[in-house]
Amino acid sequence: MFDAEVTARAPRRFATFERLESRVRSYSRSFPTVFDRAAGAWLYDAEGRQYLDFLSGCSTLNYGHNHPALKQRLMDYVMQDGVAHSLDMHTRAKAEFLEAFESVILRPRGLKYRAQFTGPTGANAVEAALKLARKLTGRSNVIAFTNGFHGVTLGALAATGNGHHRGAAGLPAQGVTRAAYDGYYGPGVDTAGQLDQLLSDPSGGIDPPAAIILETVQGEGGLNVASAAWLQAIEKIARKHGALLIVDDIQAGCGRAGGFFSFEGMGISPDIVTMAKSLSGLGLPMALTLIKPELDAWAPGEHNGTFRGNCHAFVTAKAAIDTFWRDESFAADVARKGEVLQAALVDIAGRHSETVVSVKGRGMMRGLDVGSGETALRIVRAAFERGLVIETSGAHDQIVKVLAPLTIADADLQRGLQILAAAVAEATGRADLDSAA
Amino acid sequence: MFDAEVTARAPRRFATFERLESRVRSYSRSFPTVFDRAAGAWLYDAEGRQYLDFLSGCSTLNYGHNHPALKQRLMDYVMQDGVAHSLDMHTRAKAEFLEAFESVILRPRGLKYRAQFTGPTGANAVEAALKLARKLTGRSNVIAFTNGFHGVTLGALAATGNGHHRGAAGLPAQGVTRAAYDGYYGPGVDTAGQLDQLLSDPSGGIDPPAAIILETVQGEGGLNVASAAWLQAIEKIARKHGALLIVDDIQAGCGRAGGFFSFEGMGISPDIVTMAKSLSGLGLPMALTLIKPELDAWAPGEHNGTFRGNCHAFVTAKAAIDTFWRDESFAADVARKGEVLQAALVDIAGRHSETVVSVKGRGMMRGLDVGSGETALRIVRAAFERGLVIETSGAHDQIVKVLAPLTIADADLQRGLQILAAAVAEATGRADLDSAA
Amino acid sequence: MFDAEVTARAPRRFATFERLESRVRSYSRSFPTVFDRAAGAWLYDAEGRQYLDFLSGCSTLNYGHNHPALKQRLMDYVMQDGVAHSLDMHTRAKAEFLEAFESVILRPRGLKYRAQFTGPTGANAVEAALKLARKLTGRSNVIAFTNGFHGVTLGALAATGNGHHRGAAGLPAQGVTRAAYDGYYGPGVDTAGQLDQLLSDPSGGIDPPAAIILETVQGEGGLNVASAAWLQAIEKIARKHGALLIVDDIQAGCGRAGGFFSFEGMGISPDIVTMAKSLSGLGLPMALTLIKPELDAWAPGEHNGTFRGNCHAFVTAKAAIDTFWRDESFAADVARKGEVLQAALVDIAGRHSETVVSVKGRGMMRGLDVGSGETALRIVRAAFERGLVIETSGAHDQIVKVLAPLTIADADLQRGLQILAAAVAEATGRADLDSAA
Amino acid sequence: MFDAEVTARAPRRFATFERLESRVRSYSRSFPTVFDRAAGAWLYDAEGRQYLDFLSGCSTLNYGHNHPALKQRLMDYVMQDGVAHSLDMHTRAKAEFLEAFESVILRPRGLKYRAQFTGPTGANAVEAALKLARKLTGRSNVIAFTNGFHGVTLGALAATGNGHHRGAAGLPAQGVTRAAYDGYYGPGVDTAGQLDQLLSDPSGGIDPPAAIILETVQGEGGLNVASAAWLQAIEKIARKHGALLIVDDIQAGCGRAGGFFSFEGMGISPDIVTMAKSLSGLGLPMALTLIKPELDAWAPGEHNGTFRGNCHAFVTAKAAIDTFWRDESFAADVARKGEVLQAALVDIAGRHSETVVSVKGRGMMRGLDVGSGETALRIVRAAFERGLVIETSGAHDQIVKVLAPLTIADADLQRGLQILAAAVAEATGRADLDSAA
Repeated sequence: MFDAEVTARAPRRFATFERLESRVRSYSRSFPTVFDRAAGAWLYDAEGRQYLDFLSGCSTLNYGHNHPALKQRLMDYVMQDGVAHSLDMHTRAKAEFLEAFESVILRPRGLKYRAQFTGPTGANAVEAALKLARKLTGRSNVIAFTNGFHGVTLGALAATGNGHHRGAAGLPAQGVTRAAYDGYYGPGVDTAGQLDQLLSDPSGGIDPPAAIILETVQGEGGLNVASAAWLQAIEKIARKHGALLIVDDIQAGCGRAGGFFSFEGMGISPDIVTMAKSLSGLGLPMALTLIKPELDAWAPGEHNGTFRGNCHAFVTAKAAIDTFWRDESFAADVARKGEVLQAALVDIAGRHSETVVSVKGRGMMRGLDVGSGETALRIVRAAFERGLVIETSGAHDQIVKVLAPLTIADADLQRGLQILAAAVAEATGRADLDSAA
Repeated sequence: MFDAEVTARAPRRFATFERLESRVRSYSRSFPTVFDRAAGAWLYDAEGRQYLDFLSGCSTLNYGHNHPALKQRLMDYVMQDGVAHSLDMHTRAKAEFLEAFESVILRPRGLKYRAQFTGPTGANAVEAALKLARKLTGRSNVIAFTNGFHGVTLGALAATGNGHHRGAAGLPAQGVTRAAYDGYYGPGVDTAGQLDQLLSDPSGGIDPPAAIILETVQGEGGLNVASAAWLQAIEKIARKHGALLIVDDIQAGCGRAGGFFSFEGMGISPDIVTMAKSLSGLGLPMALTLIKPELDAWAPGEHNGTFRGNCHAFVTAKAAIDTFWRDESFAADVARKGEVLQAALVDIAGRHSETVVSVKGRGMMRGLDVGSGETALRIVRAAFERGLVIETSGAHDQIVKVLAPLTIADADLQRGLQILAAAVAEATGRADLDSAA
Repeated sequence: MFDAEVTARAPRRFATFERLESRVRSYSRSFPTVFDRAAGAWLYDAEGRQYLDFLSGCSTLNYGHNHPALKQRLMDYVMQDGVAHSLDMHTRAKAEFLEAFESVILRPRGLKYRAQFTGPTGANAVEAALKLARKLTGRSNVIAFTNGFHGVTLGALAATGNGHHRGAAGLPAQGVTRAAYDGYYGPGVDTAGQLDQLLSDPSGGIDPPAAIILETVQGEGGLNVASAAWLQAIEKIARKHGALLIVDDIQAGCGRAGGFFSFEGMGISPDIVTMAKSLSGLGLPMALTLIKPELDAWAPGEHNGTFRGNCHAFVTAKAAIDTFWRDESFAADVARKGEVLQAALVDIAGRHSETVVSVKGRGMMRGLDVGSGETALRIVRAAFERGLVIETSGAHDQIVKVLAPLTIADADLQRGLQILAAAVAEATGRADLDSAA
Repeated sequence: MFDAEVTARAPRRFATFERLESRVRSYSRSFPTVFDRAAGAWLYDAEGRQYLDFLSGCSTLNYGHNHPALKQRLMDYVMQDGVAHSLDMHTRAKAEFLEAFESVILRPRGLKYRAQFTGPTGANAVEAALKLARKLTGRSNVIAFTNGFHGVTLGALAATGNGHHRGAAGLPAQGVTRAAYDGYYGPGVDTAGQLDQLLSDPSGGIDPPAAIILETVQGEGGLNVASAAWLQAIEKIARKHGALLIVDDIQAGCGRAGGFFSFEGMGISPDIVTMAKSLSGLGLPMALTLIKPELDAWAPGEHNGTFRGNCHAFVTAKAAIDTFWRDESFAADVARKGEVLQAALVDIAGRHSETVVSVKGRGMMRGLDVGSGETALRIVRAAFERGLVIETSGAHDQIVKVLAPLTIADADLQRGLQILAAAVAEATGRADLDSAA
């Protein structure tokens, strides 16, 4: 898209990528530099410039880059020749992760799940979840929602709403029926009730579903937030129609939306939960499909994957649990920062009411709906010029999405929000409002 | 399957896994212990026992566990806060990998490919390859072969032959036509000719293919080796019928079958090559879809994935290239060891002609066809009792497959082969032949 | 379902069918007798009993049984050895049908279509329509509606809403997205607007459609009537999103809903129209896919079928056009009878307000929503006991549907409506209201 | 294709069809005239020219056009106001057909089947068969053969081999695996053995089949004849792998290949048989799916169709049974004529050994493989010029196929064969050999 421009500005630095890397690369087009080091909320490029990271690997770096505690554990492990790759053999690293996950995460929340480590991508965790639901129910249909994002491998892609990704499949999507997310048709329309009516109608033309899969907050979809009432209604519909409830917590989990699981306090009990992104804490590839023990109907090896035993990730994932989740303080701090973020966004929105349609999101995944992808892109570019890495989401890329590290220092959060305010002002031609530039 | 047995033998050590990990785990059932450390060809369990590794993470650890050169580079990188996770932004780590890959791997072999880094699983690399082929041709059908293994996400699974995995999909496979691999119907039947006849027949009932996907040696499928003549015939068929040729080099590549690419010297020029497993060298998750530059028809971001920029893997992958592939010595040594391996297997086969049907494979991926999965399982268990980790493959798990590290010391290779010989003798009740027990 | 009962009542008469015909038969279970002759609105069974026909072959016998004019033409044709079966060769019978269809039906209505004669089932006409739409647009997705009925062959079945039929496919439905019909979610919800929102949303998760297929009145679906405004909105959506508009006029066409086409006067211009049922006039198998000339993109023979040249049907179809459609009188009479029918149904509804939920339908396809399939079944049985053949429709079989011949004598229409009133009274335990028994 | 030519030759006679009928028409392009009447083996056009019919509606008119006995019964039935259209209600016409079918066809052959009357197209009978097999087995895959033809509705089309038809689907075929027919790879290759090997291999990549569907002689596919040994092997494979055996007898049945069923004397016992084409005798639309009673697992109404009760066809079908199948004489006469036909074709082949590759077929469905569709087309046109209607089949339309009425007079058969010989001579430029022109 803007290959040409990038090339014009920096022909030499990027020549390697242009010659040797596929055109499919995308984020590199928004942030035309070569990154080298990173620590906490800061990225450093090869020329020594620094950038505040309000993208955090799309919520993969909730604890910031190279968190010292996690990094130390990894280095110790590598130093001692800890097993790096183990297929799905038993390893000490995996055992220690499982035990910490049980005692620190599951048990205090009254949850019981078994862990299926899949190939370390969120898409793979979703593929496993859909397969298991279909196997358990003997049904092929799965309900997924408008603007949902669940990955781009063929099975997961069918559940993903994004047309750009769907169009690349080369095969018609199979096994998924689309339903409208909470609020999709505006506040007056009960989309859960519509789904129930459709599924209850013997001639509704929707085959009985194996599962309903949803995100409690749609990150890629544009920071759409489902209400607790809607989530409970959907769970009830799943139970009524013999379907499993799958929560895809890949982006909203691990503290991003508040609790370790985004569905905490929502009054629902998902049958399957998919996790990835920030699970390893350090950004290492790891994915997990959590399954209620009574639904663990896999035969040995039915779903496999070479890298499902990435022990480096198990080590840092356990370190992340130890560091952040052994008491309430981290979650409380995230909640506090979420309020700070919300207030700042509301302030920007107030000053740019001609541009900002609304402030959206929950916890530390919030953003501005600026009405068009073009405006959002101008903001993203203006921010990058000022040293802030931030991205868009939503069907039209019209949401400027703040995904700062949850561990960000208050001063850095403020600094980033000031840059964002300045970028909005510049992008909308209201530089007079920009007190931070 | 043998859960009960394992439980009986070791109730305490495995309780964590049994309580918290899904029943889907499989390798852990063959090797009932908890591994802790590993170096070179050796694995060490939590109780201090050591095992020689003739599995190598299913060919993911071609350079052995924790190779000192690779490990050091990783530790240096982590120490210096190198970017760990980068989505698909430009990073120094990626640039250095790409440059080494171009200058050391591609250029000397006269190859030109662009790199698409996918979500770090082989299945994901295959999904990207199939999508691209379908997009380029506007066709949906793909030809895949009997006993082929290409992963278990829905798109890749359709190409995979294994019924155990296929049966778990919960949806009919879509978009793949099965053809018989080289030699499938015995030496007298020209399976390439049959495929060409089918595709050339307007009423053959096989839709024009977007691609033909194959492994030059089928690792999971049972060490079936395609001849150069057959590979050339298949490439010719692909060209004739407007299909792309995809070589899945995930298991056979990175030196396992001899050269860096398994198709070197075969007289073919694949349009797309998928790589994963040993690519990172240290066992870290990494996957790559190589695309001829003129076929790089992706739009930005059409296929994505959170962990496609796993920089730790880029660092170790470059280190592996630097360490092993800058001259011919490594490949020559692998060739030599392959002969040693072959001779030893032929010797075992000769002493157990009532059991061993044939010696199969190529390079350092060879094994024994022992006629039944039951016999092979007895051998695997007897080997493990003697401290050797080795696995089976093939449709009936009837192939005992040697996937020793390519870097294994000669003495260790001999030691492992002696254990294997003893295990075969024990498992077949010919302990009199076991000179190594 | 009620095999046992039927057997008990009439073991001998039905033995042949029970021994030799598949259990799949259904209407014979509602009308347990053996029919022999039929004329006009009357059926006669083998024992000489007569029944008034308010089913008319599900709208296949709009001109009644064995209409003398049609019958005479057929007999003349057979007598003269007219070609009976012609594949798709040119025949005089086909030419004469086409010319009458053009001059009497199309031209006066300002319509231009080409005729594709398909295998003589409505499902086949729908299969051809869907294929052509997909071929023309290069898209696979088709929008179909809740409670739509389009046939049970695999392609048509995907568009059909009925779960009983869908469940028998043995394969997941493919290539169809379900949308809500006019009024489906109650009067306050704009289902066309919802569809447009979904299709306009790049992340709505609905692939761009090749076509939107609909019935203007859903016969099998329960006499749901689409408003002109909704139909126009749907056509606009089709145009906006590059989809063809297909009207399935198989049940509602040929005068049943008023005009020859059910969409006359609705302000829409369908790209493709499917016809069957009453097209031949005499109940002979015939099906037709009408295509706007500029969309006639078929290659010769791409869609075929042995019986697509059923000349007996062409002869009677032309006779029906000649007899009923050369002036306005027939349509006017149907409109008048439709009002009579409506008044009678409203009267019954008024007397049974505790049972009848609503009066539904349009033209001469109207009925009573009696709230449950059980009640409707009791009514149907009570009617049959009194000599009236009538059936149910709707998702719960809760609609008692009047499909009397359009040619029925006023006295017979009254007689049938009186029987219906009596049957409702008996079935609802209000025999005191039954003045007609 | 040759629209232009036809138009040039006969602009006026065909204007109606060109203006009003879809381009999809095909046979009319081979036989550019307008047919009017037909009796026995003779067709008469609107201008009084007569043509000998060696096409017989693609085997739909096995008893010739308008056979007096059948025609009389139909006229009597219509005259007496016999029920024409009955959905699937019980009618006297259906009972009488069923009883005759049982006593004359099934019982003497030791067969037990239940009849499912489907929508009156062969495709619909096949769709019902495939659905039932999938329902009974819970499997989705069906094995179909190279060059098989089973219809063009979506479910049947997946089983059809012809690429011209498959390409029009607009959706990838689903639920069918292609296998090689008897002799497909030449006489040395055991295609049944190959299929068994594939299905027996747990990693063969072919999902367990619900059914194997085949024609004993492939009419559209080019008069390929399966041997009894191969058919028995296929039946054994079906039994071994839990699949149903479906014989599609739509073209080869009703005496065309010899017996009433084409599989008589072959030593197999199909679970399901599909029939259509000549079943009604007079060319009227009728289709039948025969099901072994113990496999009749339909629920009432699961598969339906408006025209499944076409009583005119029941009447003529019964008349055909009465007229031709009550003793052995008809079958004997067909066998005798088949030998005459074979001898004549062998004679032509002998005189044109440079053109005719082989004589193919069985019974009264035999023909000449003339090596190319171009040659075959020249023959067909030369024949038509001489007053013979004959068509091609096969993947390249390279087979000139004789499908004369089984009832044809010996003199007419000879006359037609002489015309054919003359046409071959002319088309191959060997008019010197043409003794019949």
